[in-house]
Amino acid sequence: MGNSITVKQVADTLSLVNNILILTHRRPDGDTTGCAGALCAGLRQLGKTAYVMQNPEITTRYNEIIKEYYPQDDFSQDFIVSVDIADTTLLALNATDLIDKIDLAIDHHRSNPLFAKQNIVNSGAGACGELIYEILIELGVTIDKAVALPLYYAVSTDTGCFKFSNTTPDTHKVAAACLEAGIDGGEINRALFELKSRARINMERILFENMEFYQDGKIAMMTMYRKDVDVTGATVDDLDSISGLPRQIEGVQVGVTFTENKDGTCKISVRTTKEVDASAICAKVGGGGHLRAAGASFESVEQAQREMREITQAVYKNGN
Amino acid sequence: MGNSITVKQVADTLSLVNNILILTHRRPDGDTTGCAGALCAGLRQLGKTAYVMQNPEITTRYNEIIKEYYPQDDFSQDFIVSVDIADTTLLALNATDLIDKIDLAIDHHRSNPLFAKQNIVNSGAGACGELIYEILIELGVTIDKAVALPLYYAVSTDTGCFKFSNTTPDTHKVAAACLEAGIDGGEINRALFELKSRARINMERILFENMEFYQDGKIAMMTMYRKDVDVTGATVDDLDSISGLPRQIEGVQVGVTFTENKDGTCKISVRTTKEVDASAICAKVGGGGHLRAAGASFESVEQAQREMREITQAVYKNGN
Repeated sequence: MGNSITVKQVADTLSLVNNILILTHRRPDGDTTGCAGALCAGLRQLGKTAYVMQNPEITTRYNEIIKEYYPQDDFSQDFIVSVDIADTTLLALNATDLIDKIDLAIDHHRSNPLFAKQNIVNSGAGACGELIYEILIELGVTIDKAVALPLYYAVSTDTGCFKFSNTTPDTHKVAAACLEAGIDGGEINRALFELKSRARINMERILFENMEFYQDGKIAMMTMYRKDVDVTGATVDDLDSISGLPRQIEGVQVGVTFTENKDGTCKISVRTTKEVDASAICAKVGGGGHLRAAGASFESVEQAQREMREITQAVYKNGN
Repeated sequence: MGNSITVKQVADTLSLVNNILILTHRRPDGDTTGCAGALCAGLRQLGKTAYVMQNPEITTRYNEIIKEYYPQDDFSQDFIVSVDIADTTLLALNATDLIDKIDLAIDHHRSNPLFAKQNIVNSGAGACGELIYEILIELGVTIDKAVALPLYYAVSTDTGCFKFSNTTPDTHKVAAACLEAGIDGGEINRALFELKSRARINMERILFENMEFYQDGKIAMMTMYRKDVDVTGATVDDLDSISGLPRQIEGVQVGVTFTENKDGTCKISVRTTKEVDASAICAKVGGGGHLRAAGASFESVEQAQREMREITQAVYKNGN
């Protein structure tokens, strides 16, 4: 376990080093990607050589804000920084041989074991981007557009566009600074949080049509049949987070989504509000997960529906 | 036409008066209601007697944050302030006899004709709440929970929870101050922006089903018929911001919503992306509004549909 250091110490350290490589986490999201882009842009503004290691799992959406920072072939780093990485098990797939070489970890996950030589972890931050902002300001970096664009991605995506309860006053202050730099927040948010493909809209319509309610509307169940996915032409991207739909309905405390796999088997996703333990429901059918989001697998859609109608109502009525 | 005055002059004026009545606009939204609540709470914090006139069109959702400020029977005002009211035609239905008696208008609509004796209009503000915040700070009011709750409603609802392009750095600064006061933004946002009633969901399904597309999917039009509203049982709260639906669809640049009124007349709402000027479209049919959100009225749904199909496509193709 490494040292824990302050924002000022981080800035002092970074101001002394050069040839910096920045690492992002597995299944990269807007926060890790945005932090890497903003830190890289800020370090370059100070005249340093800095790059972001290309993450093999990066998606098109987030690649856009970071692709200009991928290293040249002849780059050799002298200092390695990880951003928003909670543990070494979450290093990008092509970064696992750097596991013992990380000089500085910047993160906001409470569980972070301080795996780097030096570490700064602010678990009170809604997004790791808030901490990056503090460090950049301490370094004397100006929040120009190049810094602001990825930084805005970081703070907005990790807080559901400032909607979730993890949003802090600091999240808003960073967002204000980014908008002041002249980025087009409206356009960014439209792409990230508002736009739906027509395939997604058609799929949602089908799901709402076949939705079943139990226990006076407290439980909602919906089935995503393969034939409907085919008819709508919905892709994996189109179906992102779709199992959150039932829980958006007023009064629903347990949402169960049955997804028919290509081979006829069935994956279920359970999403709950604070009143119900999703993992307790899934544990009864050999699955598992978190308090508000859990899952399990079945041999067929029919079997899943039959068992889950019974078990979900039993857990709802009797507790765990 | 009255005077235009500065934030400092507004504060000086308010600090000298007492027995203040605050007015909200027709079809009250989160901004007018939130501004009224925050201003009233702030004035009371300074020891003044202040009330918000009960708006007959107030919905349950917004009534909650303002109901404690309705006047006692024996209250008689010495000073009248309007908040977020763009024109005297938009006075609440029970306030029309006060048309010539408004001492101060606080607003952010570009079109405001400065109808009060004294006026402050900041058309650069995303929400009128930003201006209220400035005034409260100038008055020396502390942003405590009583002020912060309605103020957060004001800035969050008018900017789509900080998502729309009208969000400014100041919007975020006000939100930061509100969260700092200790309100629960996550719970407020879940109720305002995430939860949907079953009536809302059924209404959305009907609207998507009857949606018409023109110009290769760049224009989308949908009609909200009275009979469908009746069948779903949707209330005004259920239908809040529903005219934003078409613009959520990938590729759509102009969304037109036709809403059939009880008397058979028709209200239209036009929402656009940055490529198209909504107010230019509505100006052609005697309406008006903002760049991205405008409206107009017609004698019937059929007339509205006929004219808008033609005019919207013409403006889309030829510019304004």
